[in-house]
Amino acid sequence: MKTRAAIAFEAGKPLTIGEVDISGPRPGEVLVEVMATGLCHTDAYTLSGLDPEGVFPAILGHEGAGIVREIGAGVTSLKPGDHVIPLYTPECRQCKTCLSQRSNLCTSIRATQGKGVMPDGTSRFSCDGAQVMHYMGCSTFANFTVLPEIALAKVREDAPFEKICYIGCGVTTGIGAVTNTAKVWPGASVVVFGLGGIGLNVIQGARMVGADKIIGVDINPARQEMARRFGMTHFVNPDEVGRDKVVQAIQDLTDGGADFSFECIGNTNVMRQALECTHRGWGTSIIIGVAAAGQEISTRPFQLVTGRNWRGTAFGGVRGRTEVPKIVDWYMEGKIQIDPLITHVMPLEKINEGFDLMHSGESIRSVVVF
Amino acid sequence: MKTRAAIAFEAGKPLTIGEVDISGPRPGEVLVEVMATGLCHTDAYTLSGLDPEGVFPAILGHEGAGIVREIGAGVTSLKPGDHVIPLYTPECRQCKTCLSQRSNLCTSIRATQGKGVMPDGTSRFSCDGAQVMHYMGCSTFANFTVLPEIALAKVREDAPFEKICYIGCGVTTGIGAVTNTAKVWPGASVVVFGLGGIGLNVIQGARMVGADKIIGVDINPARQEMARRFGMTHFVNPDEVGRDKVVQAIQDLTDGGADFSFECIGNTNVMRQALECTHRGWGTSIIIGVAAAGQEISTRPFQLVTGRNWRGTAFGGVRGRTEVPKIVDWYMEGKIQIDPLITHVMPLEKINEGFDLMHSGESIRSVVVF
Repeated sequence: MKTRAAIAFEAGKPLTIGEVDISGPRPGEVLVEVMATGLCHTDAYTLSGLDPEGVFPAILGHEGAGIVREIGAGVTSLKPGDHVIPLYTPECRQCKTCLSQRSNLCTSIRATQGKGVMPDGTSRFSCDGAQVMHYMGCSTFANFTVLPEIALAKVREDAPFEKICYIGCGVTTGIGAVTNTAKVWPGASVVVFGLGGIGLNVIQGARMVGADKIIGVDINPARQEMARRFGMTHFVNPDEVGRDKVVQAIQDLTDGGADFSFECIGNTNVMRQALECTHRGWGTSIIIGVAAAGQEISTRPFQLVTGRNWRGTAFGGVRGRTEVPKIVDWYMEGKIQIDPLITHVMPLEKINEGFDLMHSGESIRSVVVF
Repeated sequence: MKTRAAIAFEAGKPLTIGEVDISGPRPGEVLVEVMATGLCHTDAYTLSGLDPEGVFPAILGHEGAGIVREIGAGVTSLKPGDHVIPLYTPECRQCKTCLSQRSNLCTSIRATQGKGVMPDGTSRFSCDGAQVMHYMGCSTFANFTVLPEIALAKVREDAPFEKICYIGCGVTTGIGAVTNTAKVWPGASVVVFGLGGIGLNVIQGARMVGADKIIGVDINPARQEMARRFGMTHFVNPDEVGRDKVVQAIQDLTDGGADFSFECIGNTNVMRQALECTHRGWGTSIIIGVAAAGQEISTRPFQLVTGRNWRGTAFGGVRGRTEVPKIVDWYMEGKIQIDPLITHVMPLEKINEGFDLMHSGESIRSVVVF
């Protein structure tokens, strides 16, 4: 069959809106009609050509929501009509990592997913007879896409697609970093570096679990208002306090250092500040942002020997099939907000304008509805 | 009164054996007769002049055991005759850090201890009328020394001083890193970089808590025999597998990476290897070794984002007054070994020979008995 899609034919060029061929689900696979998809910095990073693992032509997009339309042989946990969120971090419940119960980084299909193909080594997409690659196992920039059963979270049917698609990446990454990776405790002091689509979700996650002091750090003062709506209690602008005085400013605000910090930018210098502004003895710093290829973080080992803890998180440490439905519930129950974060909604035809809004800093999240 | 001591008059010179004046305990202080003291790399580091915080003249030594001989006003938890181990990491039970119950790094006397004086800002030692500084709050290279009450762990009286002095630093640092900081679980795989006085204690700590695979890494093959006696199950010699292939060698031995690693050398390149040889998803690496001033650790943030955890430990995360007595019990009950690690025992007059044995790698631990 044919499906409308935004196709990335080559790095550094705008996406092309058109039709591609998609073949039906093979055993263990599911055909999903994507109803809405968010535009994430990771899509832009791969499209830019800087991602060393990027392959082209490909159908990008990894933050979607949709409806199951057809299931392949052996699929038991989903049926046509089910509402689903695609998972770029799957949950097979059988690999060493899933069984360890110590990490969400399921490895069962990692090798093929990284190469842009399905677990059997082939792509379901083609264009004029030539193969088009999958992306992060999701490819939500197509109206129809095929995913492995283990890469779909079944969610409640009363949740609006154009909102919960954001749970497919940004919301879960930010909130899960707080609840699953850091395990922020009630009364904690929390610092969030970068008040974009991830950072704001870290902030509301910290508020949800009862943090006392929630400090936002951003060079864009326009981010302040939204961040305060989401729970930020203090704001630090590095351009006002001095970029080399950010650590001191946070130590002053937190009686010696924050209990937790989160880097939501992908800047290795900021990652160091995020570690060093945490409290001696127990401070934990979580890296969420994705640094450019080849960049390294560094610090004096004394920072760790005196009790700081340097960690990272991917997809918020969340096991997607088990926990994403719970985050959808939190949204529907009003425990977390998504609506104000989705600043722009557009049809597929305007997807390149959505990336322009991202790069100019005008949008927090743009969502494409099919 | 006078006391015999090994005095460090200046950096880079051998210690001078002689007599110094010591004044009695002031309020909150305790006079201890040191019965035995270990010689640790940290003493040698400060004596070398490389320690930027080193002050001279001073009485070094921080790994001792002795008997309370006099108490100052207000001391309530100790009395003359009590057997004690001096604590360079005190436990006041009242500062923000102690009350947090999240760290052992009591801050109550940190500022003065770092300057080589007692909490009231003065020294109890002098020589020919000139002030001689304390060291790490302990100064166990003197036969008599004065410490704050909060820096002494009271221990059982049937434990031999010349063995349990080692619990004042090396034993507790290595075992506590396993039990308190890393919380190694039964069945875990553990890698220990550096099989000296700390690393061997990490190994026996890992054995005590039920680790399955305990891999030692050292360029000195002579360390292998003792390490196997302490519980090491596999040995990796970087000079045999290739110094740039150590990470791969450990991943091969552990089905993808170790659950825990411990750096017990103080080499920042090894610290990176120690992190990167741990398992994706949950591997935890603990820095124990003290790097030279100004040196930095680095890695790609991807190592953390994919679930590795970089931490450090000081005094094994152990709260000295509360937990050191328990470690003495473990020794007396045979749960841990100390005797084979103490390879040399000598009188104070031969203390400089003890440091020679350390530098040549001949000793694991030398102990001075008064």
